[in-house]
Amino acid sequence: MAGWRERSWWGWGWADEAFDDDACRQLAERTLRPWMPIDGTVTPIPYDPVLDRPRLIPPSILEEAFAPDSMTRAAHSYGKAYRDVVRALHGRIENPPDLVAFPRTTHDVVAILDWAEACDAAVVPYGGGSSVVGGVEYRGAAPWISLDLSRLNRVVEIDETNLAVRVQAGVFGPALEEALKPKELTLRHFPQSFEFSTVGGWIATRSGGHYATGPTRIDDFVEALRVVTPAGPIESLRVPASGAGPSPDRLFLGSEGALGVIVEAWLRITRRPAHTASTAVTFPTLADAVDAVREIVQSGLRPSNCRVLDPLEAMLQAGATDGQARLLLGFESPAFDVQPSLDAAMSLCTAHSGAALEKSTVDTWRGSFLRAPYVRDALARLGLIVETVETACTWNRFEALHAAVIAAVQAAAPAKVAMVTCRFTHVYPDGPAPYFTIVTPGRRGAEVGIWDEIKHAVSEAIVAAGGTITHHHAVGRDHRPWYEQQRSPLFAAALQAAKDALDPRGILNPGVLI
Amino acid sequence: MAGWRERSWWGWGWADEAFDDDACRQLAERTLRPWMPIDGTVTPIPYDPVLDRPRLIPPSILEEAFAPDSMTRAAHSYGKAYRDVVRALHGRIENPPDLVAFPRTTHDVVAILDWAEACDAAVVPYGGGSSVVGGVEYRGAAPWISLDLSRLNRVVEIDETNLAVRVQAGVFGPALEEALKPKELTLRHFPQSFEFSTVGGWIATRSGGHYATGPTRIDDFVEALRVVTPAGPIESLRVPASGAGPSPDRLFLGSEGALGVIVEAWLRITRRPAHTASTAVTFPTLADAVDAVREIVQSGLRPSNCRVLDPLEAMLQAGATDGQARLLLGFESPAFDVQPSLDAAMSLCTAHSGAALEKSTVDTWRGSFLRAPYVRDALARLGLIVETVETACTWNRFEALHAAVIAAVQAAAPAKVAMVTCRFTHVYPDGPAPYFTIVTPGRRGAEVGIWDEIKHAVSEAIVAAGGTITHHHAVGRDHRPWYEQQRSPLFAAALQAAKDALDPRGILNPGVLI
Repeated sequence: MAGWRERSWWGWGWADEAFDDDACRQLAERTLRPWMPIDGTVTPIPYDPVLDRPRLIPPSILEEAFAPDSMTRAAHSYGKAYRDVVRALHGRIENPPDLVAFPRTTHDVVAILDWAEACDAAVVPYGGGSSVVGGVEYRGAAPWISLDLSRLNRVVEIDETNLAVRVQAGVFGPALEEALKPKELTLRHFPQSFEFSTVGGWIATRSGGHYATGPTRIDDFVEALRVVTPAGPIESLRVPASGAGPSPDRLFLGSEGALGVIVEAWLRITRRPAHTASTAVTFPTLADAVDAVREIVQSGLRPSNCRVLDPLEAMLQAGATDGQARLLLGFESPAFDVQPSLDAAMSLCTAHSGAALEKSTVDTWRGSFLRAPYVRDALARLGLIVETVETACTWNRFEALHAAVIAAVQAAAPAKVAMVTCRFTHVYPDGPAPYFTIVTPGRRGAEVGIWDEIKHAVSEAIVAAGGTITHHHAVGRDHRPWYEQQRSPLFAAALQAAKDALDPRGILNPGVLI
Repeated sequence: MAGWRERSWWGWGWADEAFDDDACRQLAERTLRPWMPIDGTVTPIPYDPVLDRPRLIPPSILEEAFAPDSMTRAAHSYGKAYRDVVRALHGRIENPPDLVAFPRTTHDVVAILDWAEACDAAVVPYGGGSSVVGGVEYRGAAPWISLDLSRLNRVVEIDETNLAVRVQAGVFGPALEEALKPKELTLRHFPQSFEFSTVGGWIATRSGGHYATGPTRIDDFVEALRVVTPAGPIESLRVPASGAGPSPDRLFLGSEGALGVIVEAWLRITRRPAHTASTAVTFPTLADAVDAVREIVQSGLRPSNCRVLDPLEAMLQAGATDGQARLLLGFESPAFDVQPSLDAAMSLCTAHSGAALEKSTVDTWRGSFLRAPYVRDALARLGLIVETVETACTWNRFEALHAAVIAAVQAAAPAKVAMVTCRFTHVYPDGPAPYFTIVTPGRRGAEVGIWDEIKHAVSEAIVAAGGTITHHHAVGRDHRPWYEQQRSPLFAAALQAAKDALDPRGILNPGVLI
């Protein structure tokens, strides 16, 4: 982590990037006043939390690997969802970890798991802590340890011949890219949480990168893994591909800390893009933009950026006041000119009434994208409910799903006023991954309950419309009920059996997945 | 299957495509006489096999789903590896299935599994029977049923909006493409066994398609699966992507019939290519060709064909007599001109002393590729040992692996004379998938033992050199010892636990994977 800068213990990112009280009010005036009532009261940033004493005392031999102080424990109690930020803001640290462990070596991880098994303590692996689904928040009764992997932070080896990097699980996005940059290499995996999430967290949650198509999900980048389970270590073979049985890596991709602690990975990297071409496109309706994008991705073109914004998202996030939909379209390559690809994609847009715009929209949108979690925290302090939900569905289901999500939010929001905007984060030949941002007035002190009801309604709507309960936010604890609806009970039984083999005492992230 | 044409029960493919005795001799004279001694004796095609009576009697309610005749049982005793063909040629049907079942519906599959459990009979799922790794050959003592899925042969639904096809597991390659062709669609998955293998077999074995890069392995095409296990059915959600837990589909991809019977799949399809560009390139050495190909695939270019042939392979399979290596290079797209991609790839070739050749080499090679299994059978009848092995490794390991495989064959072959040729079937940014063809004199009656020793030596060499024991031939029974060396014991324990949950009596393909 970057030296002197302090991470916010209650909200997103860096403490010094949070909006101050005046900035919170100005933000609300500027963007939300026309839409919904705002009382202008700004919840103060909470004082340092005071917690009960830990129920666990670290063994002396491992003492240096543990932090028992209240601030560290409070900061590891929750992820960074809206409901986490609001609870922290109101000083509600419900079930903090008894200890936070910072293993410095794989051997430490083994020792901590052994000790936790002996104490019947739960262990919740923790990468950057950016979970928005209750993935790092233990809700059981046992004493528990948050296993923060951020000291396993070495970029071990950069292999320029095979374009791969061997990296420990606790390396954050920026540190990895810094290590690759001098060699003109990149992982090219930029989730919105990039600055505050780790390689291990990406793998455990099957994170989606910033890019719209092609290799962008962490699943595609994993070449081999090292995992420590309570039953022992597992290492997969480092080869470009194999047909030997079910893939071991795929068992741990999405395992969310419940099957083992990912300690190291070989990841496929690429040369940095030397050629780029991009534009913004305007469409009379969202349906036109969707049709154009479907044609682009089904043609075999693989834009790096192919982000559809519905008219409301385009207005709020990209300053578009014409009531039209937007497409942010871009191509890149390390080796060859991509203008022909952009031209080919544009001609498909034109056939669906698309018109090219000047490029500035893209930059506006990108800045807004990276600031979004800070904005979320600011609006939360003003008493607003601000959260995002995401899914993926086949093309034929999108229109109904989009309508159903908006209707569900508006029906469930007590104020019956809600802004619901939508963009595509990723597009596949067989369907898009829509991402919704929801803003609605809250009621001071009741925000979490109100949000939980909206989330319930939206999740029901997504499942009914044939979308997955999560495309890249993972399951965590918050998506469990709908994950269970969408997962065959027998597959759950197979996963449970695998977990029993790897984690016989069930100490790893109990309550997640199974 | 295509009406009146008869499948060979002992060898590859169609009975009427097998070389007759004279053609066998001519083939040997033409291609092998300069290389190794050939006695000219042609083992006759065996008479119809006579087998012991089945130890199982089908229940009357399912009688129509079973075939108890000797010819059907013999044809389901082995796959189509060299060692299978030789044993059949010599009339050695060692452990034929007691019954062959041809379920007509998913319900039949359920009923057959229930009945097999009640009888303690083993069940070996059988697609097209093209396994070359002992995948469909049960070697245990229990009575057993070969579960031939070829009557589950419906292309259920073609979804043009989302570019996907819903297809039953027993559909063969040509039937699937025939169904897609009127809509100008294709799965674009053409393993060498295409004509004689099924959708279910491809998924169970993680087959590799004909194409060199991009989406070509069946893993990438699976959108959702329906599987029948002895414990019940499993169905995965049909969405373009999901981040919800470990992927259920990936548990069954590569499960080789040991975890469940795949009965249906949604597969991603694509529009047929409208633009193609291809060439053959000659390189002074194999190393030059390898360097050029590595640069091509690491540049982000995704050729559909990118097949390196070493000088010996180039001579034998593509008629090249200049002692140089060859690269068969091609691009295709349904939507845009690919000549610029070919030009970009060619300029990388030129930088490594590559020179474009006229295109005919490509066609020569392709014809030879499809005829290869028939040639193998003809040479087997002449007493020669003819087989292929394949792997994948990172780029830096290829040169040593290539040398080690050749050395291992030549050391293990009793005659100390062996032709070992190599080509790349697939190339990934992090490494190639080399494919070796081995021809060496046998000793009548001892061929299987000789081959097994060579195979053992080659497998040891591949594992020692850091290659996977199989890139697309699957594990089966023949690769088990090396698979176990390369797989973490704990992952094996997790797989075994999952199997116990899905197949509690262990009836499914015992001896495979776990």
